[in-house]
Amino acid sequence: MSISRKSLEIVQSSMSQYVIKTPVLKNKEINSICDSIIFFKCENFQKSGSFKFRAATNAILNLNETVKKSGVITHSSGNFAQALALASKNQHISSYIVMPQNAPKFKKNAVLKINDNLIECKSTLDERENTTREIQNKYNLTFIHPSNNLDVILGNSTVVSELIQDHADLDYILCPIGGGGLLAGSALACNAYSNKCEIIGVEPLNVNDAYKSLKSKKIEYNLNTDTIADGLRTNLGDINFPIILEHIKSIICVSEDEIINAMKLIYNKLNILIEPSSAVAFAGVLKEKEKFKGKKVGIILSGGNVDSKKLPF
Amino acid sequence: MSISRKSLEIVQSSMSQYVIKTPVLKNKEINSICDSIIFFKCENFQKSGSFKFRAATNAILNLNETVKKSGVITHSSGNFAQALALASKNQHISSYIVMPQNAPKFKKNAVLKINDNLIECKSTLDERENTTREIQNKYNLTFIHPSNNLDVILGNSTVVSELIQDHADLDYILCPIGGGGLLAGSALACNAYSNKCEIIGVEPLNVNDAYKSLKSKKIEYNLNTDTIADGLRTNLGDINFPIILEHIKSIICVSEDEIINAMKLIYNKLNILIEPSSAVAFAGVLKEKEKFKGKKVGIILSGGNVDSKKLPF
Repeated sequence: MSISRKSLEIVQSSMSQYVIKTPVLKNKEINSICDSIIFFKCENFQKSGSFKFRAATNAILNLNETVKKSGVITHSSGNFAQALALASKNQHISSYIVMPQNAPKFKKNAVLKINDNLIECKSTLDERENTTREIQNKYNLTFIHPSNNLDVILGNSTVVSELIQDHADLDYILCPIGGGGLLAGSALACNAYSNKCEIIGVEPLNVNDAYKSLKSKKIEYNLNTDTIADGLRTNLGDINFPIILEHIKSIICVSEDEIINAMKLIYNKLNILIEPSSAVAFAGVLKEKEKFKGKKVGIILSGGNVDSKKLPF
Repeated sequence: MSISRKSLEIVQSSMSQYVIKTPVLKNKEINSICDSIIFFKCENFQKSGSFKFRAATNAILNLNETVKKSGVITHSSGNFAQALALASKNQHISSYIVMPQNAPKFKKNAVLKINDNLIECKSTLDERENTTREIQNKYNLTFIHPSNNLDVILGNSTVVSELIQDHADLDYILCPIGGGGLLAGSALACNAYSNKCEIIGVEPLNVNDAYKSLKSKKIEYNLNTDTIADGLRTNLGDINFPIILEHIKSIICVSEDEIINAMKLIYNKLNILIEPSSAVAFAGVLKEKEKFKGKKVGIILSGGNVDSKKLPF
């Protein structure tokens, strides 16, 4: 699946008044450590603290008027929860958010500040889906999946559209993989905007379902979700996986220590705090320095929702 | 003294390829705490980590070719030191940097990473000036003052030019005061670009020489320099003071605790680390909430050069 630049521009322009065009940061010391030129696309400064706000906003904007009246629901471990709560509030639409018990308390509190309709459930995917279905039926809501939804994917595409519009000569863009929505959106935008740039996914080794899926060409699942990158524990879906399969050639897997080191380095050199899920892409560059030597590399800092009182370093 | 918008645009355009157009961040939680709408102009993400890079760059660009060949010198407690070292290196001009012994080690190390010509001296202003003069004469260097120099002031003006160009409806812009170079530059830009916006200076109570100077209409000096805001210990000069006197109506003084609280709040809500000198302007809004209630307020986050291992909170 490919989407024309013109179609992506329509998405971008319809959202532009609601989302922040996030800054791109560069840092000489980091370039010298990596031996490449890094462009950090700072979605940690997006509304609701992550790129998910783009996804939620585009999904909401594309609902029909009847659906808008009844409201929406999602299940999410954190960032899409906050994003949908805020995007729907901004458009005066009611929303219900199902969050697993093991989602960070910090992220639950952030949702509660926006929206009272937070429902907790057990942490398995089955339980998330069952609880969601129950409430969805009860209130006649429209379910918006955090990653496996075309409007969500197109909303996400605007991150890379903005990045390439301003930095047309990037060789690579590295993107963290959780449910696959950001990677699929990034792939569509890169394909539409650049002949030379390649999107590479980066995933925690402990939950490397996407790495395995790309290899086996079918959706694989994680046996456990034991990673500090709490936003990347989910698996791919039937809408985003074909896009990933068509456009993505490689995925780098990084260890927990590598994720924490990347997060720490960004903190010490850029003086910004990002969440572990967001440090994963940078960890990929640090791991494969030789591959990126001398290249211009975009890194999507996907989110900044982290409890500054509970840092892992 | 006033400068036309056209002249300021020439300054801005001559520098544009060398400096970063820094991002402006907003945050709902901070707005709700302040009961106003805050626009943080993030000079902490400027090259060399502070707005001083604009000052140094403009000063260097305006040197004549003979002077460029011999090189430049300055004395600074930190940010202008780094800025001049980097700006001159970028233009292939040699520079000498005199720093007082009590400047943060962290800032000295940052200079040494760019330039070996770092000379330490005793911490009094007399000693800084004597040491500088000695080396200046020895190597036939041109002295560039960190704040009391018109090219420096015009370089600084571009911070507020950018901010008002993108946010024309600001009611106030708050600006920290050290040597007065940023405040004077901000005043000139605000005067040229806006009919409604007012620049307000904010200064640590412990070194409130500018507050006293504005009151007595002559340059006053600090009896001691005991503030955590290490970039704001210096006094005004004969070039920037007349500009400040003409355009600035009020200065807010904040305590050390108020500075640390502002720094902490920015860290906890925006997840960015700024240096204490840079938190001073935001401390001014927090201190005078009633004055700024419901208003659109620009805050210049002047720099981010802080040792993340030595936070005061």
